[in-house]
Amino acid sequence: MSVSGFKVGRILRDSAREKNIFVHGKIDDQDAVIILEKTPITQDVLSEMLKESTQLLEMKNDIYSTYQLHPPPHLNGVKTTVICPATEKHVKKYQRQETFLVEETEEDYQSITLPYINSQSFSVQWVYNILEKKAEADRIVFEDPDPQDGFVLLPDFKWDQKQVDDLYLIALVHRRDVKSLRDLTPDHLPLLRNIREKGLEAIMKRYSVPASKLRVMLHYQPSYYHLHVHFITLDYEAPGCGVERAHLLTDVIQNLQDQPEYYSKHTLTFPIRADDTLLSKFRDAGRV
Amino acid sequence: MSVSGFKVGRILRDSAREKNIFVHGKIDDQDAVIILEKTPITQDVLSEMLKESTQLLEMKNDIYSTYQLHPPPHLNGVKTTVICPATEKHVKKYQRQETFLVEETEEDYQSITLPYINSQSFSVQWVYNILEKKAEADRIVFEDPDPQDGFVLLPDFKWDQKQVDDLYLIALVHRRDVKSLRDLTPDHLPLLRNIREKGLEAIMKRYSVPASKLRVMLHYQPSYYHLHVHFITLDYEAPGCGVERAHLLTDVIQNLQDQPEYYSKHTLTFPIRADDTLLSKFRDAGRV
Repeated sequence: MSVSGFKVGRILRDSAREKNIFVHGKIDDQDAVIILEKTPITQDVLSEMLKESTQLLEMKNDIYSTYQLHPPPHLNGVKTTVICPATEKHVKKYQRQETFLVEETEEDYQSITLPYINSQSFSVQWVYNILEKKAEADRIVFEDPDPQDGFVLLPDFKWDQKQVDDLYLIALVHRRDVKSLRDLTPDHLPLLRNIREKGLEAIMKRYSVPASKLRVMLHYQPSYYHLHVHFITLDYEAPGCGVERAHLLTDVIQNLQDQPEYYSKHTLTFPIRADDTLLSKFRDAGRV
Repeated sequence: MSVSGFKVGRILRDSAREKNIFVHGKIDDQDAVIILEKTPITQDVLSEMLKESTQLLEMKNDIYSTYQLHPPPHLNGVKTTVICPATEKHVKKYQRQETFLVEETEEDYQSITLPYINSQSFSVQWVYNILEKKAEADRIVFEDPDPQDGFVLLPDFKWDQKQVDDLYLIALVHRRDVKSLRDLTPDHLPLLRNIREKGLEAIMKRYSVPASKLRVMLHYQPSYYHLHVHFITLDYEAPGCGVERAHLLTDVIQNLQDQPEYYSKHTLTFPIRADDTLLSKFRDAGRV
């Protein structure tokens, strides 16, 4: 078996940022997945790379210039993983779902999103289990038991709690009548201020991470329709921190103070995956 | 000047994830910063890369095997940016630094940030060079020459323009009296709507990338105080797309429509590096 015998089928996923590509194809008539990723540039090859490469000037402006370098092959490897024979499961695992931005007006929310949420009756039983101490009770970092303004703070599943570099906690509110950002009104200001204040205090106390190192934010759309707030350390570029999905709690509080109907009236932009049923609802309505 | 003459000093920053490295050193006895970043792996070179590379088997286990490939140089470039002569500021800019969140009130902006910006008189000569066609004229993708509402659209330095996966363009406004988001008022709505509309149109025409695949956003604080708007493909998780620094243009337009003083009055949160002089100004004022 050899990489050079790989017949390229289709690209499953690639990342210009990470310089990798996941490809489905064939080797000797067998299904195969091949993953290529360029190697990091390390200090030990740096001087040789600069000296031994051919260089092509692309642009010059004032003190800035850009080049295309072509280093000799032995300094510039590509880490390659081959899975062969590959099953349909491997192929699906590596396939990226395309994402689109949707601009949801107030009317879109009422006529498309809200009926969709209601029709799906997404289960948040697991959230209720936590709030009622039927599950994960030992993981709770802090609780304010107030039924109106209280919440439970606990580590997100993504965080292994081994280091604070990727600290990630979630505050789940006790009240069960707020689905998402869209439902928020000035009535919820005491709840939101309480989460911010006591959540930050609890994280400082337990992990010694101050407010200036934390993104405190909500997602829209959220992954589940029971109001929750994310606390993520600033140095950790977690998925979901992008401007297209995240809303800083301080901004939410300010917006509600100044414009009571901000979140019910404003057009909200959010990313949505190609296989999300909600996207097909927006398509059916001719809104995407 | 030549890349091969660069004498490596110290590594300012590197990313194994992004396959880049930022180095401080000398070219012909002048201070220089050089940035190397491997190019993404694209579909058009894939078959040739697999066929023409030397391959070295590293590991085999059941259906999994890994190799080290060494592609021929012309298929495996390194995008290189040289800043020479580089000042201490450039060196600092690229040096990895701890980051903090600052909450800047209206008063903070007037008493700390604005005096700091004015005192520094950051040069935006390179922006003027572009607007006046003294540099990079061949890189311009689109221009609306109107002095009030016009702008120049061109690829960001970070984008090598070889694939749309990491498409990144910048719109630089022709008018020179708007420093940042903080200066925006409803007077600028025609300018902002124009950038959004014509920018998206130009990108669709040139690159066939639709609005639903693009984050159109501003940074606060910006890297330079001449109003500009970033157009970045949604699939590309570029640095600077995080909620702590980015502001979607559609939100900016909406906020200005509903609240004329939104950006002059609101508290704005932004990340700031430990070595940024602006942070020390906030510290001196007892605000951090």
